[in-house]
Amino acid sequence: MIVHIASDAPKELIQQCVEHYQAFVIDDAGQQALVTSSQVKKLDERFTSLAERTFAFDSDIQLASRLYQGGTRTIELPGGITVGGDTGHTAFISGPCSVESEGQIETVAQALQQSGIKILRAGCYKPRTSPYSFQGMAEEGLQILDRVRKKYGLGIITEVRDATHVDQVIEYSDIIQIGAKAMYDQGILRRCATIRKPVLLKRGFGTNLQEFVQAAEFILSGGNPNVMLCERGIRTFETKTRFTLDLCGVAYLKEHTNLPIFVDPSHAMGYAYGVADLTRASTAMGVDGLLIESHPNPREALSDASQQLTLEQMAQLRQSIVPVAQAVGRTVV
Amino acid sequence: MIVHIASDAPKELIQQCVEHYQAFVIDDAGQQALVTSSQVKKLDERFTSLAERTFAFDSDIQLASRLYQGGTRTIELPGGITVGGDTGHTAFISGPCSVESEGQIETVAQALQQSGIKILRAGCYKPRTSPYSFQGMAEEGLQILDRVRKKYGLGIITEVRDATHVDQVIEYSDIIQIGAKAMYDQGILRRCATIRKPVLLKRGFGTNLQEFVQAAEFILSGGNPNVMLCERGIRTFETKTRFTLDLCGVAYLKEHTNLPIFVDPSHAMGYAYGVADLTRASTAMGVDGLLIESHPNPREALSDASQQLTLEQMAQLRQSIVPVAQAVGRTVV
Amino acid sequence: MIVHIASDAPKELIQQCVEHYQAFVIDDAGQQALVTSSQVKKLDERFTSLAERTFAFDSDIQLASRLYQGGTRTIELPGGITVGGDTGHTAFISGPCSVESEGQIETVAQALQQSGIKILRAGCYKPRTSPYSFQGMAEEGLQILDRVRKKYGLGIITEVRDATHVDQVIEYSDIIQIGAKAMYDQGILRRCATIRKPVLLKRGFGTNLQEFVQAAEFILSGGNPNVMLCERGIRTFETKTRFTLDLCGVAYLKEHTNLPIFVDPSHAMGYAYGVADLTRASTAMGVDGLLIESHPNPREALSDASQQLTLEQMAQLRQSIVPVAQAVGRTVV
Amino acid sequence: MIVHIASDAPKELIQQCVEHYQAFVIDDAGQQALVTSSQVKKLDERFTSLAERTFAFDSDIQLASRLYQGGTRTIELPGGITVGGDTGHTAFISGPCSVESEGQIETVAQALQQSGIKILRAGCYKPRTSPYSFQGMAEEGLQILDRVRKKYGLGIITEVRDATHVDQVIEYSDIIQIGAKAMYDQGILRRCATIRKPVLLKRGFGTNLQEFVQAAEFILSGGNPNVMLCERGIRTFETKTRFTLDLCGVAYLKEHTNLPIFVDPSHAMGYAYGVADLTRASTAMGVDGLLIESHPNPREALSDASQQLTLEQMAQLRQSIVPVAQAVGRTVV
Repeated sequence: MIVHIASDAPKELIQQCVEHYQAFVIDDAGQQALVTSSQVKKLDERFTSLAERTFAFDSDIQLASRLYQGGTRTIELPGGITVGGDTGHTAFISGPCSVESEGQIETVAQALQQSGIKILRAGCYKPRTSPYSFQGMAEEGLQILDRVRKKYGLGIITEVRDATHVDQVIEYSDIIQIGAKAMYDQGILRRCATIRKPVLLKRGFGTNLQEFVQAAEFILSGGNPNVMLCERGIRTFETKTRFTLDLCGVAYLKEHTNLPIFVDPSHAMGYAYGVADLTRASTAMGVDGLLIESHPNPREALSDASQQLTLEQMAQLRQSIVPVAQAVGRTVV
Repeated sequence: MIVHIASDAPKELIQQCVEHYQAFVIDDAGQQALVTSSQVKKLDERFTSLAERTFAFDSDIQLASRLYQGGTRTIELPGGITVGGDTGHTAFISGPCSVESEGQIETVAQALQQSGIKILRAGCYKPRTSPYSFQGMAEEGLQILDRVRKKYGLGIITEVRDATHVDQVIEYSDIIQIGAKAMYDQGILRRCATIRKPVLLKRGFGTNLQEFVQAAEFILSGGNPNVMLCERGIRTFETKTRFTLDLCGVAYLKEHTNLPIFVDPSHAMGYAYGVADLTRASTAMGVDGLLIESHPNPREALSDASQQLTLEQMAQLRQSIVPVAQAVGRTVV
Repeated sequence: MIVHIASDAPKELIQQCVEHYQAFVIDDAGQQALVTSSQVKKLDERFTSLAERTFAFDSDIQLASRLYQGGTRTIELPGGITVGGDTGHTAFISGPCSVESEGQIETVAQALQQSGIKILRAGCYKPRTSPYSFQGMAEEGLQILDRVRKKYGLGIITEVRDATHVDQVIEYSDIIQIGAKAMYDQGILRRCATIRKPVLLKRGFGTNLQEFVQAAEFILSGGNPNVMLCERGIRTFETKTRFTLDLCGVAYLKEHTNLPIFVDPSHAMGYAYGVADLTRASTAMGVDGLLIESHPNPREALSDASQQLTLEQMAQLRQSIVPVAQAVGRTVV
Repeated sequence: MIVHIASDAPKELIQQCVEHYQAFVIDDAGQQALVTSSQVKKLDERFTSLAERTFAFDSDIQLASRLYQGGTRTIELPGGITVGGDTGHTAFISGPCSVESEGQIETVAQALQQSGIKILRAGCYKPRTSPYSFQGMAEEGLQILDRVRKKYGLGIITEVRDATHVDQVIEYSDIIQIGAKAMYDQGILRRCATIRKPVLLKRGFGTNLQEFVQAAEFILSGGNPNVMLCERGIRTFETKTRFTLDLCGVAYLKEHTNLPIFVDPSHAMGYAYGVADLTRASTAMGVDGLLIESHPNPREALSDASQQLTLEQMAQLRQSIVPVAQAVGRTVV
């Protein structure tokens, strides 16, 4: 249940209510709101005087629900980009799987600049499934991203893999990406709740939509309203492609949540050949953003070699989605 | 292995070869072709004189493979529509889940006509999972479709559920639809191999892409080249939507097979609210056709009530995909 | 809803009731019963005089439900074996994937005889996923099984692949096996409802438990009470094994249905090395029967080579489950 | 590749080799071993003098592979229990989902003692999917477990949820449980590699077997040889049960890895009614241990209420698996 607290409510009573329900209190765009479990359908009588307005829910999707806030919330991204709300914007974000060297990132940054792309993605802490693979450049990589950001005026999005370096990623990155394998990590979720930087939460590949949005509620209920969801493929019985991009799930999220929705077709497909088609498909669905892996030389990439586009393919793809976005009344930014 | 047989090859030797490999012989657009298991990588020496050209394959996707025939095969549908090849056509097919009455089908036919839609879909033999549900109007339904076809000049596609009525559906329908639950049914597949009418083969919801295309090979190797594939959602752990539309799979099929690809977003989503978005997504991928469920009064539908569009929604959707198709260089027919 | 019809109910009223609800009427162990959709929760007033007793259900699992008939139904198999009821019997059935020759089947039959196994399994119509693989010996195979049955006094279970040969399999086989890929085939289900021979219905690998039991309802509601369910692995994201044996599903079926439950670990595992462990696991769950693939020479098998046990392994396995069955109060037959 | 280093190898050359391959060096039961990626199939010539023996692998399952070490490794657990090796032991571990109060844990501890159960499980950091649910008693819970351990002489296993409290769990717990949702967490895995306490690694419900064992390699390659795997159900399309217990996967792990295998049927099933059957099934497979949820009053449990056994059911279950274990030549401890 979400309770909009009356402006003249006594602090002591609020505190009692918080303790009674083990509730969260947040500032929701100027409105003080108290959030309890959705199993609470009605406030206890002694607390009803607190409530200016109450919202009851069927499940623990509450702050993220369209039944609470209709429409998609507006979130400001780096590079002067805004997504959600009435903007009609679809953000195109690109870059390599991993930071491999300063030269590599500079080459990518130049290509992004030429294509009018404002945000660079690249990982420094790679959540590899084997200890014997390349694990990312860690803080050295973050420092490279920092220098390139300044030189090229790009926004940066990079991934946090586990709670041990979440502070570091928060310090360096403009958007915090919580990767698919870290999506349930409360050490990360709760830490990201204490900042205001936008957070891109990727769906775990074994995660259902209910759990996915509930993970966002960890951040929202802690006080950070700037959460975006990213569908990146779920694990199914089909193995000809790396994962299965769940655009039915995207339709569900658009209908039922107020969070901007991104799609990452690169990880879903796992092969460069399908990425352009899936990017256009996602664009035609009116999503708020796209995450496309690209690399100066995909064959030499230290991770995800098969799915990264060349910088030329990336530039062409960026170009090709403009008319698709227009056809559904949107603009690529 | 596919062997193009030399025009002067002795019939007796061909026959010996067929028996030796338990091979199929078909007329492939004027060229006599012999098809064996893909485990045969080289013809036995005594048969090499037969071969004008040979094609070896990694798997039993052979006649359907782009390694055999580059590009998508061209197939003529009713209503003067052609898909595949260089046509750049995306066929929009619509109609109710089930034939429920002649009046219902007439109402739909009029709506299709007004929207310029040439092919009507409607089921007479419903593969329901419960014996206690409405099972379809059977031959009476087929007769209704026949009368409406003549009156409105529409093409008809209807589904065969099991081998007991495959002859009947072949007699009445312009396109034979093999439903998801019947996809492995060799009684149906082998019968459809003996005709030339186009066959729309729907992917089983538990079927991987390899098996799906191999099911098409049952029809192709029996002599009917007019096979189209239809992705309609696979069964995954996600249950907020009825199935999960596998557009990664569509990207795979486009890259590796020469069969036209259709998409049925209605069954994948299971809810009317997501159908338009998924239809536009599929259109942006450049698929060859779309199957959209619509009904004069979805709430009263005897089957699939939640996922059918109203006729107005269907007409608007048909309109809205025109610019999306244009954006990717295609035309809706 | 199931309605036990009073013995003095007027035939005309019964007929009206059948037509009103499109209901089934069966003889349920001497009691005339009328079965409607489970959406009917209460009989219309004009029919209440018919009813001696009524049973309402949450879903279309009705005749198979423990809420209708507590305990497991008793079914007589060939070879003097009975399963279900209070027998505490676990039937061990074995044999090759496919009938390949009379000699092969004789060798297997002798091995079964020596191990005290009473029922032979072997397929004649193989539901292969490729047209280029061995498809089974068809009626010739059935005739071999018939001769071996007579010579060795074994019961026979063999599979029907599609409706075109269901009559043939019914004629030759003692137990009709409906394979995983044919599980939704109403041509087969409805035909098997008209006989009294026991039917072993295998779960489709993409089929959920609700649909699985509803498929059995097609047979039960048509008048054949002798249906047994067989779990044989479902398709999941895990590909190190062929399928994933769903013993949680077996626990569900034991709790909620009155049908005897069989397990086929061979197809689930796909590799001989895991079959013995999974057979013992299934035995410890107290299942009613086991289907184990064995072959005189697995490496040379024309189908399922990797998962068939040698006849020696099969005999040892049969031996090893005796104490496991005893440990849970059961007997292997 | 694993390289057994000759005892007289020069330290400098070892160091060069480590740097060249970014390799791990561990003490493997007295033998110094160097571990590289499995993509290394042959040592560079300048390093061959280091190697007493080398082991090459097809995949990054190396230290855990039976091709490296045949048989199951022996691991000492608290309470004087040993699993793996030639012990033939199946450890039975039980307790509530969550520590809820000291009284609750005492009640459980007494019941365990009466049944001869040596290890208590109970969670203090619950990886709930909603921020609005009970999240566990955290360090207060760990202190309760500590006191109860001392009073009743039990061993303790409790779960680490994320890297922020891994040190705390390592300090208090005898066995470190890494939960399904934390299985990819390198902050946890790498920290657990630096200790010698046994680690029970639960399979993620969306994790395939390859990734699962590779997660164990993070711990093994960091120097902790005491890793046990726990199958606890994977997420599939079947939703009548909470998850699908993958005993095919257990058969695979037993065949291909040298790590002791545990099974947790409680989380897989999600309902108390199936737990006993699945526990007996797992026992009959010869697993090394079992994790069974039990609670003094399951209906009142703050988490996992539906799947916990009463203490009486737990005691009966413990009893009932003794003859099953005997039937397969094993002993319950």
